[in-house]
Amino acid sequence: MAASAESYTDVLIVGAGPAGLAVAYWMARCGINARVVDKRDTKILRGHADGLRSRTIELFDSMGIAHRVMQEGDHSAELMYWRPNDKGELKRAGNTGFSSGTASPYKMAMLSQGRVERFILDAIKDSSDLEVERGVVAESLSYDQSPEDHGQKYPITVKLRTLSEEEATPFSHPGISKVPAARDDQQDLIQKRKHPVGTVETVRAKYLIGCDGAHSWTRKQLNIPFEGSNTDHIWGVVDMVPITDFPDIRRTTSLDSRNGHLLIIPREGNVVRLYVPLQEDEVSATFDRSAVTLDTLRNRVKKILSPFSFDFKICHWWTVYQVGRRLAQSVNKGRVYLAGDAVHTHSPKVGLGMNVSFQDGFNLGWKVALAVRGVAHPSILDTYASERHQLAKMLIDFDRRWSAFFLQEEQKQKAVDTSSAPEDNSAAMSSLFRETELFTEGHASFYGKSCLVHKGSTAMAKHLVAGERFLPAIVRNQAGGRPSWTTRLLESDGRFRILILAGDMRLKDQKNRVSSLGEKLTELLMRFTPPKSKLDSIIEVKAIHTAPWLEVELSDFPPAVHQFDEEQGWDYSKVWSDSKCFWEPQCVGNAYEVWGVDKSRGAIVALRPDQYIGWMGEIEDVAGLTQYFERVLQEVRPRSLL
Amino acid sequence: MAASAESYTDVLIVGAGPAGLAVAYWMARCGINARVVDKRDTKILRGHADGLRSRTIELFDSMGIAHRVMQEGDHSAELMYWRPNDKGELKRAGNTGFSSGTASPYKMAMLSQGRVERFILDAIKDSSDLEVERGVVAESLSYDQSPEDHGQKYPITVKLRTLSEEEATPFSHPGISKVPAARDDQQDLIQKRKHPVGTVETVRAKYLIGCDGAHSWTRKQLNIPFEGSNTDHIWGVVDMVPITDFPDIRRTTSLDSRNGHLLIIPREGNVVRLYVPLQEDEVSATFDRSAVTLDTLRNRVKKILSPFSFDFKICHWWTVYQVGRRLAQSVNKGRVYLAGDAVHTHSPKVGLGMNVSFQDGFNLGWKVALAVRGVAHPSILDTYASERHQLAKMLIDFDRRWSAFFLQEEQKQKAVDTSSAPEDNSAAMSSLFRETELFTEGHASFYGKSCLVHKGSTAMAKHLVAGERFLPAIVRNQAGGRPSWTTRLLESDGRFRILILAGDMRLKDQKNRVSSLGEKLTELLMRFTPPKSKLDSIIEVKAIHTAPWLEVELSDFPPAVHQFDEEQGWDYSKVWSDSKCFWEPQCVGNAYEVWGVDKSRGAIVALRPDQYIGWMGEIEDVAGLTQYFERVLQEVRPRSLL
Repeated sequence: MAASAESYTDVLIVGAGPAGLAVAYWMARCGINARVVDKRDTKILRGHADGLRSRTIELFDSMGIAHRVMQEGDHSAELMYWRPNDKGELKRAGNTGFSSGTASPYKMAMLSQGRVERFILDAIKDSSDLEVERGVVAESLSYDQSPEDHGQKYPITVKLRTLSEEEATPFSHPGISKVPAARDDQQDLIQKRKHPVGTVETVRAKYLIGCDGAHSWTRKQLNIPFEGSNTDHIWGVVDMVPITDFPDIRRTTSLDSRNGHLLIIPREGNVVRLYVPLQEDEVSATFDRSAVTLDTLRNRVKKILSPFSFDFKICHWWTVYQVGRRLAQSVNKGRVYLAGDAVHTHSPKVGLGMNVSFQDGFNLGWKVALAVRGVAHPSILDTYASERHQLAKMLIDFDRRWSAFFLQEEQKQKAVDTSSAPEDNSAAMSSLFRETELFTEGHASFYGKSCLVHKGSTAMAKHLVAGERFLPAIVRNQAGGRPSWTTRLLESDGRFRILILAGDMRLKDQKNRVSSLGEKLTELLMRFTPPKSKLDSIIEVKAIHTAPWLEVELSDFPPAVHQFDEEQGWDYSKVWSDSKCFWEPQCVGNAYEVWGVDKSRGAIVALRPDQYIGWMGEIEDVAGLTQYFERVLQEVRPRSLL
Repeated sequence: MAASAESYTDVLIVGAGPAGLAVAYWMARCGINARVVDKRDTKILRGHADGLRSRTIELFDSMGIAHRVMQEGDHSAELMYWRPNDKGELKRAGNTGFSSGTASPYKMAMLSQGRVERFILDAIKDSSDLEVERGVVAESLSYDQSPEDHGQKYPITVKLRTLSEEEATPFSHPGISKVPAARDDQQDLIQKRKHPVGTVETVRAKYLIGCDGAHSWTRKQLNIPFEGSNTDHIWGVVDMVPITDFPDIRRTTSLDSRNGHLLIIPREGNVVRLYVPLQEDEVSATFDRSAVTLDTLRNRVKKILSPFSFDFKICHWWTVYQVGRRLAQSVNKGRVYLAGDAVHTHSPKVGLGMNVSFQDGFNLGWKVALAVRGVAHPSILDTYASERHQLAKMLIDFDRRWSAFFLQEEQKQKAVDTSSAPEDNSAAMSSLFRETELFTEGHASFYGKSCLVHKGSTAMAKHLVAGERFLPAIVRNQAGGRPSWTTRLLESDGRFRILILAGDMRLKDQKNRVSSLGEKLTELLMRFTPPKSKLDSIIEVKAIHTAPWLEVELSDFPPAVHQFDEEQGWDYSKVWSDSKCFWEPQCVGNAYEVWGVDKSRGAIVALRPDQYIGWMGEIEDVAGLTQYFERVLQEVRPRSLL
């Protein structure tokens, strides 16, 4: 063992997949002293997750990377169903449009997890020097929970060991083709080690975030039970370049043949992912997973797709898995948190894994960051469990229902006489699809009442729900006229936001209401903003009004939304107009309709740093708004001193 | 002088601005042995050009970088006019919407030249190892034009000298603030030299492309006259972060006050560019340009904008220039070509410079590349002069007209009694704007008849014009359903394209017509494709049909548009459908209407590698199409041998 080192960090993140990188993103944006370690030598380059739902891409927009996903990903608008017809011939049986229950600037995209991680890593680099330390494994954890006082600032002690190249290279199935990495991923292939191989470093941390996957080392250290079981389903998944005359190979397809079910997912470039059931011909209990080769998958697909031809020569990645439907009994012990697959495992076939994991980290990261910085009460961290553990349960339930559907299909087929066609379930599948769409697309998150979510009247914003996402709409910048989706202008930079939905500022009464609100907001902001910081550094106030773009001026709005800075001048980024822009066909001036807000009288909406709605009220309800922030944020200048 | 080296390259590009990088892009995409040198130590980071017109961004789309421009750039939809009212108070006098005469996926974007160069450099890196050699100056040129035979393969000899840091650092005006470079530009700040300082390398080249700016060294070596004159206009331009109560500082604004004309161009982030006239108060002939300081500009703007306040503390860049309206008498001598500012200089105020320069390089690069590769007849290079020299003339004429308009404004104001308001010319300006829009946006290029542009009947595609851009539209991929603008799917990869506008493939007759065309096209492709190359490596055939997406199959189309490859399988990228996609509001199935093509019968359009229309005809007119390619491409397998 090489010489030991010791160091301190506020937040240690173990695992740099979608969950860990989401946490790391917040550390970078909020300027937290943090470290991220991952036992693999390089980031993932191929395979693993690949489905991005629209809410995930909306969040990427708030991080400035959505455009890269949309450029590189594949986009399927329809799910096709195939099944044998009356004569036993495999035929298209219909299709369902993938729509989203509520409007979103983005639709589902299929893109390799490695590329998604590239974009998040670039967003991290854009705002900090935080880098993932690769080839580093956490080996021991001690957590001094007893005297949780101010003297014990770094209660967590973790030993990190630098791995050799051999130890850090993950297992890879034989048969995978050599495919060059993308240009901007090539830097990641160069081995970099902070310490020599074998070095054990002792790290003391205030928070530890375990994003270390289904076999989470962190979870095991905490002795948190991982409940559930492996199902009988054994699947193969293969990313390859197909050679086939099956006509829908580039369409998302659920295919039921007499020889099994095949799920076809077209991907970026000419890659297609196939989910291949393996256990059908064998009795599942005795199925030998390790005996599966790439040819096993190839031959299964050939049989399922028959009489269509099928083969491939280029394989990007493949693996075999047994669906483990498991849920961690809790998501943390004190300041040690779990996120992502460490909390929930399920079938990858619904394309939710990367989304829920990323959103776990996205939910947790800013809370940890604001607690570390002393901006927010540490009690906000309790909402991580209430919000995400519940969602993890829903995910497992959903997976059970969805997988049962696939299973039922297969069992039915096995049960019936092979000379007759399996029953057509595409209508039922389509209906399940519609029913669960808000959940799967991430458009409903079901965050319950908490210090971060005030469930009060919704009369002033009929289509908005506290604890849910702020419904995206296109608005125009008042100062410049540029149209933008709200997902982009509500940047994920670690700040809470007060949105003044200012209504029609041409009306004198309304202007007075907003002006009066503005004065009170300045006082509110001062209570939570450190004396030498800018007044928008903890809570940013933005306004969106309904007057036609050229009929009001920036100066009609209170100073809180066009602050002055000695060097930067006035801030032109905070006032927006819900009006038409002939340049952008989707910018029709319907944002208030989307939100269900009165175009004259407006409303106030408080958003958490992750763009979820924390509080809603009338323009006059500064008392309610203040109460909300008092429960969430540390007061730095008591009201009495202002 | 350090030790001399000698080397050979097919194409030497001098200057790595927008024109040089456009040429370099084609070298990279076409796999040409090329070098690019630039005398500056680093690429431009701030200042210089900043206006991108929609056609330029369409071409960027074909290079895969448009999304980055749209994400980072600023977008103004309206041009605002300000002038004194009857009482002499400076007021808004109206506005013109920046629209584009024909539909484009993109609108004008304002973004620093340095960022635009970053994106082109990244596109170059994505397909080759070609890197700009910085801090290298060309010092002598000899060109052996006499025996233009095959024995003389490298007729051009250039000596390149590696500069010291001092020599390679461009002059920078005092007063510019330290602003950090973007994350992905920081690598460019590191000094890299291929050779030690002072090394003189002798390079022998087949082609030399001088993209070395208004003071072009290359142009001087060729003794090509640069005709025109400096005008009396002396302007300052400053990129700064404004501190002002002028309400339209973030709107593109043409402002006429009694104290002069100000052009305001909002830019990315919080930067605003101002064009400031300097010569008004002084008699121009005696104006001392070198005496201008940043404060001179600051004070001029204060005076013009008065009674509004104005100042700035952060200055990104500034300079002073005297408008030189000049045109090179020719754009080449033999194999030595000029592009960009080396050919034309004019006022930057119309925001065309970077666009015309980039498009010069974009027009020239693929012609040189295909001539070097022996794919095309070298005679296609003559069209560079006929196409771009003519456009340069039009540019100079346009600039004269447009600048006269600004000048006239000012002269009027000086002539009239200062107590009365200057005449309102915003309507006239607006009208000039509309009249010249097709030209300024790059939607009309006026490329005349040549071997590359066949001007025949337009009956089969009423809105398309040979020599003009292929009008952009959104279509859906037949194999996968993904909607895409044609600007993206017609990738700039160095290939000619035959677009089969296949009409309604549900109709038996039409299917027969297309099928018969397909057979003949395969024969055509074989004549121009080297025996061991893929059949789509020189000319790619794509099809766009009008049947609803799910009512035809890929297999209905001829093999030329879904080629088979032993490793890659069938090609799914070549057949597209002009039909609706509920996912994409702009995908309405109107492409054939945009092109003026009959939805049943279709047409054929041949596109040059730069997406300009080379030839159009009926589905049966393979003879005409063949004739077109015979004039352009080298036959590698004569028809008689097929």
